[in-house]
Amino acid sequence: MLQFNIPALHTDKMEEAKAYIDSLTKPPGSLGKLEDIAIQLAGMTGEVKPDIRPASLVFCADHGIVEENVSASPQEVTYEMALNMVEGGAGISIFSKMIGAPLTVYDVGIARQVFNPKVMDCKVRPQGTANFLKEAAMTVEEAWAGIKVGYEAAKKAIDEGAGCIIVGELGIGNTTPSSAMLAAILEIDPETVVGRGSGINNEQLIRKIEVCREAIALHKPRKDDTIDLLSKMGGLDIAGMTGAIIGAAENRTPVLLDGFICTVAGILAELLAPGSKEYMIVSHDSVERGHQVAARYLGKQALIQLDLRLGEGTGAAIAYPLLQAANIMVKEMATFQSAKVSQK
Amino acid sequence: MLQFNIPALHTDKMEEAKAYIDSLTKPPGSLGKLEDIAIQLAGMTGEVKPDIRPASLVFCADHGIVEENVSASPQEVTYEMALNMVEGGAGISIFSKMIGAPLTVYDVGIARQVFNPKVMDCKVRPQGTANFLKEAAMTVEEAWAGIKVGYEAAKKAIDEGAGCIIVGELGIGNTTPSSAMLAAILEIDPETVVGRGSGINNEQLIRKIEVCREAIALHKPRKDDTIDLLSKMGGLDIAGMTGAIIGAAENRTPVLLDGFICTVAGILAELLAPGSKEYMIVSHDSVERGHQVAARYLGKQALIQLDLRLGEGTGAAIAYPLLQAANIMVKEMATFQSAKVSQK
Repeated sequence: MLQFNIPALHTDKMEEAKAYIDSLTKPPGSLGKLEDIAIQLAGMTGEVKPDIRPASLVFCADHGIVEENVSASPQEVTYEMALNMVEGGAGISIFSKMIGAPLTVYDVGIARQVFNPKVMDCKVRPQGTANFLKEAAMTVEEAWAGIKVGYEAAKKAIDEGAGCIIVGELGIGNTTPSSAMLAAILEIDPETVVGRGSGINNEQLIRKIEVCREAIALHKPRKDDTIDLLSKMGGLDIAGMTGAIIGAAENRTPVLLDGFICTVAGILAELLAPGSKEYMIVSHDSVERGHQVAARYLGKQALIQLDLRLGEGTGAAIAYPLLQAANIMVKEMATFQSAKVSQK
Repeated sequence: MLQFNIPALHTDKMEEAKAYIDSLTKPPGSLGKLEDIAIQLAGMTGEVKPDIRPASLVFCADHGIVEENVSASPQEVTYEMALNMVEGGAGISIFSKMIGAPLTVYDVGIARQVFNPKVMDCKVRPQGTANFLKEAAMTVEEAWAGIKVGYEAAKKAIDEGAGCIIVGELGIGNTTPSSAMLAAILEIDPETVVGRGSGINNEQLIRKIEVCREAIALHKPRKDDTIDLLSKMGGLDIAGMTGAIIGAAENRTPVLLDGFICTVAGILAELLAPGSKEYMIVSHDSVERGHQVAARYLGKQALIQLDLRLGEGTGAAIAYPLLQAANIMVKEMATFQSAKVSQK
């Protein structure tokens, strides 16, 4: 078990940032949400002009629940795509390169031995999680171990110079545990939050809803015990992301959330380490059904609406240039005084 | 008078792009609107993997209508901000630098002599336009001359390697001619499209609406004669943008529109050179009142919603990384075959 300590936002730096932004050569407020972002970044980092160099961290794991025919892709795609990621061909590879973010791919439980040394071997369970329709997905100790992988990954990235963490996941079947956990946390019927993931048909969708309902009935997860929930119905990719988000927040580092699975990890992070959500930015509104419910739970509005549903952290990497624009505004734009521009 | 010839989209290349995108290592359709953008870019350029290196072109001019107290800023700000732009301190300077776009600033009619050689001297009227509440803003010949400045600017940028044109404007008072022209084109009351520009008060807003109404009553612009409209109630910055948009479209080059003023120029371009709109992308939904009406006229949905209203082309530069992401997707993402990833 880990103890977390999330610092409060620097509200004085937010006020300082606001005043500074109003001195820049543009009509006051005319950069809209970019101004809000710059103020938020000041509160998180304690700097009006922070360094927000990005790093992408992707957590990969397999899910025993795929036995229940809840996914559009075969399980080996987790393994195959992990290799594609480190070889530069996946969505998160190309978008990380676009934004200058080093990409690190963690194997937290891919159900196959990975011989490529570019994939970080941090397997907590060599076969991935168990089928949580029949038994707990993993033990409490394993859930903590998964969180620790992400927590240390974030600290390492920050030690190496990252000022903004992009978290992503790879794990065939991982929208099912995400939906089950979100339904349990919100005490709502899974139908409200179960979506089509990477593209299941109607029959599979109905099955996926049933699986979530039955799993909740079987495990009766304790709503006030986040690790109980994560161990019974979660996944190791999700545990890794949860740890990375907490690690970023503890280090006053903004963390860009991707889509549904990632935002559920954000909720778990907030439950385990209250205050973490102040460091989270929801990058986009995913098409996946439960995403907006999850974002609302965190009290967040997304930066962009592009009907994305790829995962891997891609939405966060695609949205990152907007954070960069907000950051460049405070770093590089002239003031009325410095540029000798008249004010009314 | 210029003759324009806008080529049709390459629909075969759009189909080829769609099929190619479906072969990439991601669930089909999962990059949402980025996939649509990549298909559009293929139709415009005739290439599935086009080079869309950006160039920013800003057209600056003063407006005699500022005599009517319709602007929040004094007129000298046009001159001062043009210098700020070329010295690197303005919004469009820093965001152009962020996206690697060379920025060229054209003086089409700043009401003051500009001694900085980095500002391109293309003055059509040394004092800017006349007060169009009292007389025509400019002659028909001057309107054509302003269009020619932009048309040649776009051709020059494309000759120098640009594959995507960002158009922007600078001209204190320029939302007033934009609103008057849009109201005349749509045959609606100016109240529907007149907004607060860079931040006028209620009294000024009422005056601005009256000015537009009176000008339309005075000039009775001929709706089917775009140059008549532009010469009577337009501006030289707007003429420059109109020409640049047409120049881009003639050369099969995507053009990213910024906010309200720029989108009105897009409408003028479409009226003067039908088919131009196929090459236009609306970058963002501006807060300025008439913008969404103008975008709807062109049948366009914006890429981002960030409550921007700065102008200068900033919204287009801020949105450009999304075009870049769509472009990188087709250029760099692996296919299922190349990455040996299983499909269902």
